[in-house]
Amino acid sequence: MPESLANAISPNQHHEHHFQSSDTVRDIVIGLADGLTVPSALAAGLAGAVSSPRLVVVAGLAEIAAGSIAMGLGGFLAARGDAEHYASELRREQREVVEQPGDEADEIYEIFEKYGVPHAAATPVLRSLQANPKAYVDFMMRFELGLEEQEKGRAWRSAATIAASYIAGGAIPLAPYLLLGSMTAALQTSVVITLIALAIFGGLKGRLLGSHILRSAVQTVLIGGLAASVAFVLARLLNSHGA
Amino acid sequence: MPESLANAISPNQHHEHHFQSSDTVRDIVIGLADGLTVPSALAAGLAGAVSSPRLVVVAGLAEIAAGSIAMGLGGFLAARGDAEHYASELRREQREVVEQPGDEADEIYEIFEKYGVPHAAATPVLRSLQANPKAYVDFMMRFELGLEEQEKGRAWRSAATIAASYIAGGAIPLAPYLLLGSMTAALQTSVVITLIALAIFGGLKGRLLGSHILRSAVQTVLIGGLAASVAFVLARLLNSHGA
Repeated sequence: MPESLANAISPNQHHEHHFQSSDTVRDIVIGLADGLTVPSALAAGLAGAVSSPRLVVVAGLAEIAAGSIAMGLGGFLAARGDAEHYASELRREQREVVEQPGDEADEIYEIFEKYGVPHAAATPVLRSLQANPKAYVDFMMRFELGLEEQEKGRAWRSAATIAASYIAGGAIPLAPYLLLGSMTAALQTSVVITLIALAIFGGLKGRLLGSHILRSAVQTVLIGGLAASVAFVLARLLNSHGA
Repeated sequence: MPESLANAISPNQHHEHHFQSSDTVRDIVIGLADGLTVPSALAAGLAGAVSSPRLVVVAGLAEIAAGSIAMGLGGFLAARGDAEHYASELRREQREVVEQPGDEADEIYEIFEKYGVPHAAATPVLRSLQANPKAYVDFMMRFELGLEEQEKGRAWRSAATIAASYIAGGAIPLAPYLLLGSMTAALQTSVVITLIALAIFGGLKGRLLGSHILRSAVQTVLIGGLAASVAFVLARLLNSHGA
């Protein structure tokens, strides 16, 4: 976030300090949010239904493998889909600026009309853009379509970041089942360290996104706790019903 | 998508037919993508490690409960976070338009400079915006910050749509384990219907997002198949290693 950094360093300049969450931070948040919640809830659910911590570890690792692959590759496809969408719209705009100059001019007027800017005031901007086709196309991409170009290599980086964050988040609640022999001790330890991890993650997320730190921590803990509780009760009910 | 619909009906008008994925479609895709992948991979993984289809159902339902709650509430918080971010930036811009008119004017010039539009050409637009403070603020929200206002009730709708899609996606691979007594038959049936569901989902997603239908179907099947295979092999290895 070089712009935010620059603003933080020289806060008296006329630039505003608007927070821009970077794509990498967003990917870490996506991966950690689910990684800290779903494997731990599954482990808690199974702890209510089976007697061996070993089975919880097997199911938990299978879930982490499946979840990190599904989310990571899902992030890869989403980023690549955005890049393809941008490229195809860019080609379309490049064609239209040349082949349908009248329609493109009408679109410029329409954009400004939404903000009460009359044709006469918009015309000098239009003339300037028409003299510079590359800037004209960029302007339409951003202001007509709301699309921004992606950095190179974004899709792979996004996939790796989401998958690694999911694995890191999932390893925390699973560790006690791997290390402790007693199911009760493993479940209790796992619940406690997972709630602590959720609170820290929620607080950091709140700070990064500029919302209330405490509220974000409490919300994150509540979601994780609710998911784990429902999974625990459901698995126990299903198991006692069938046994 | 009323605008797209209008364009499709009267394609000879000057409006362009740019695809805009609606938020609801996006939420359905998010929920189905993970719902069709993670529970089925977990079920396949456990089928390689345990002998009772019943345990696969218990773990699968616990996963669906945990996953739908975590993803649904995650979507809720994301949408509400966006709405709060918009509201706080809106208040800031409303203040700045009144208190720092010179800085705001410089920002308008900067926006246009990026597209090679000189100050003289941008000034009539600036004057028009300054005469209409509400439009001025809206213009800055959209063109300086790239933020758009959310529809009302979006956060709840987003949560419900994602959770319901996740449950619907997760129910498909789990049904055979619930209905068939033999683990082998259940695993085979589940793999086949899940791959078919992934292909249909991938194809529809490709069509909606305007990418290649066949390629999207193949990619979606590969991701789901890869996640399930890794989970299956991992669970089997873990289990045989410990047994």
